[in-house]
Amino acid sequence: MRMDIATVNALPYEDFVNIFGNVVEKCPIVTAAVWSARPFLNFAALEGAIRDFIDALPESGKEGILRCHPDLAGRDLQSGTLTQESREEQAGAGMDALSSAEASSMTRLNADYKARFGFPFVVCARMSDKANILRQLAERCKNERAVERARGIEEVKKICHLRLLGLVLTDAPNKL
Amino acid sequence: MRMDIATVNALPYEDFVNIFGNVVEKCPIVTAAVWSARPFLNFAALEGAIRDFIDALPESGKEGILRCHPDLAGRDLQSGTLTQESREEQAGAGMDALSSAEASSMTRLNADYKARFGFPFVVCARMSDKANILRQLAERCKNERAVERARGIEEVKKICHLRLLGLVLTDAPNKL
Repeated sequence: MRMDIATVNALPYEDFVNIFGNVVEKCPIVTAAVWSARPFLNFAALEGAIRDFIDALPESGKEGILRCHPDLAGRDLQSGTLTQESREEQAGAGMDALSSAEASSMTRLNADYKARFGFPFVVCARMSDKANILRQLAERCKNERAVERARGIEEVKKICHLRLLGLVLTDAPNKL
Repeated sequence: MRMDIATVNALPYEDFVNIFGNVVEKCPIVTAAVWSARPFLNFAALEGAIRDFIDALPESGKEGILRCHPDLAGRDLQSGTLTQESREEQAGAGMDALSSAEASSMTRLNADYKARFGFPFVVCARMSDKANILRQLAERCKNERAVERARGIEEVKKICHLRLLGLVLTDAPNKL
């Protein structure tokens, strides 16, 4: 059940971190940090605080965020160790139902990408599908590292946006 | 089994994050970020990179690190949801064997501390014992927020140091 922003603002930090701690995959520090900035005027202010925190990190910190993400259709999916959010997102994009040729391509391209950049390919799977993801992965392997770091972080923000939408109402209900 | 620094430097980021991701409690981003700074000359250089990353965070980020820590003798200990590292450290300081009077004091003081500062009391339990921890908690409740934020982060670094010592050899073995 999604909560309104007043309810969000009233949460003790422990509940806030428990509920929102994975809006940036495996980086509860981001959520835990922005609790300091409450109260939030609305959904956009909460999201903005998260984005600002990420933007203020050094480049190594942005790479750190990317490295906390699992591979798409990778070993965490195979072994069932994805976070719940990531599992649902990957399944929604068909990552759990690849043909063996698609799975081979994904494995090879993920490995190429990681060898080139030192962080994983991150894409907002819920805004895509498997054909598009495979095509993007092949293309993005050709980019420069700084371009991909920035691109990956943009994808992190899209993922965060959709995860937040599942937790917080974008407009507070009228209070009479 | 502890590894030498050459072995650490040769780790792919995924293994590095898996092995060292909890040297700062529930903040794998810190470890994932410093992978960018490898190769590390020695243990001290690895530890220094982690400390430098923490020091460069904004104050909200430092509070975020503290908020990722469990209470001492708190509900995560009761419910068995502590990380392995934290469970061992808390048990070593006797946090799992408090008298009912001690447990009541701890619960009350933890609540006072969190209400005052908006983050939990963090102390390097392995460098202390339960009498000392209770005394420190009572005293630190009286500090200013900025003092406690800095103090908590110093304790985070002590905890990190001991966790690293359990994973990495401090001197590389001679290679003939």
